[in-house]
Amino acid sequence: MSYTLPEFLAHAIAMEQEAVDRYLELADMMEAHRNDAVSKVFRDMSHFSELHRDSIRERVGATELPKLKSWQYRWRTPPEVGGEEAFDYLLEAFNALKYARGNEMRSLKYYRSVAGESQDSEVKRLASEFAAEEREHVLALDEWLARTPRPSTTFADDPESMEPV
Amino acid sequence: MSYTLPEFLAHAIAMEQEAVDRYLELADMMEAHRNDAVSKVFRDMSHFSELHRDSIRERVGATELPKLKSWQYRWRTPPEVGGEEAFDYLLEAFNALKYARGNEMRSLKYYRSVAGESQDSEVKRLASEFAAEEREHVLALDEWLARTPRPSTTFADDPESMEPV
Repeated sequence: MSYTLPEFLAHAIAMEQEAVDRYLELADMMEAHRNDAVSKVFRDMSHFSELHRDSIRERVGATELPKLKSWQYRWRTPPEVGGEEAFDYLLEAFNALKYARGNEMRSLKYYRSVAGESQDSEVKRLASEFAAEEREHVLALDEWLARTPRPSTTFADDPESMEPV
Repeated sequence: MSYTLPEFLAHAIAMEQEAVDRYLELADMMEAHRNDAVSKVFRDMSHFSELHRDSIRERVGATELPKLKSWQYRWRTPPEVGGEEAFDYLLEAFNALKYARGNEMRSLKYYRSVAGESQDSEVKRLASEFAAEEREHVLALDEWLARTPRPSTTFADDPESMEPV
């Protein structure tokens, strides 16, 4: 896993863009269910991801980045859910927060492993910095999870949604 | 799971578009690894999905469709794979074919369950028709899987990648 700087930046931008899009969807869903507090959390998370994406883009400037495959940056869909059930399954704030947490946790692990394994000092530095940002996201979601009622059905199948940061 | 016709058509179009995009990625990946035979399979699958998407769009005409959330139509990412490893993991044709199969199987199940549960006779009719198409895709992938060498690492974690059609 030794990335060149353009490869690494391509991943980071794609991952931030993915987070922007998914958080907006989650915010819309929470809004539709009149959970304005959690909707606002997701809108804020989307906004932070947007700012981060833009600052990475600025850094990239005119450098051409490789085109990635979707499985290199996409969020996982909720586990054990097919078709329309996903919609019901995710209705509750607790599950939506856990869904987000599992995906943030994967980003965090990605950045940590790049920081640990890269041979390029600039990639190492940026990956550590981005890992610290992702850690903040996971901790923010944890705070919200702590104050959100736990529904009967949870994401027990996705270990990363509950793994310690 | 009782869809209105516009809801059902929105799902079908989104699922076909998703298949178009994912098959193109898989085709590119196979081409990069000089597996032209399997690359062609994926390009053909992408093309069939494109034709199907277009024929559904034609049917929709000017009807306005609901906007779906990503988890209502997206393919799953490969299981138990994080970050860049996904790339290596999928290098081999066998795994790429199984990845596709698991996702086609989910589409097939989706259409079957709609066909079985919908109260709308037109939704029922279309869902049965689309289920039959998905079944052909799964069978086509099965034929290719049967003649593709099995690598050491496989998608043992994804039951739908091997479940009988």
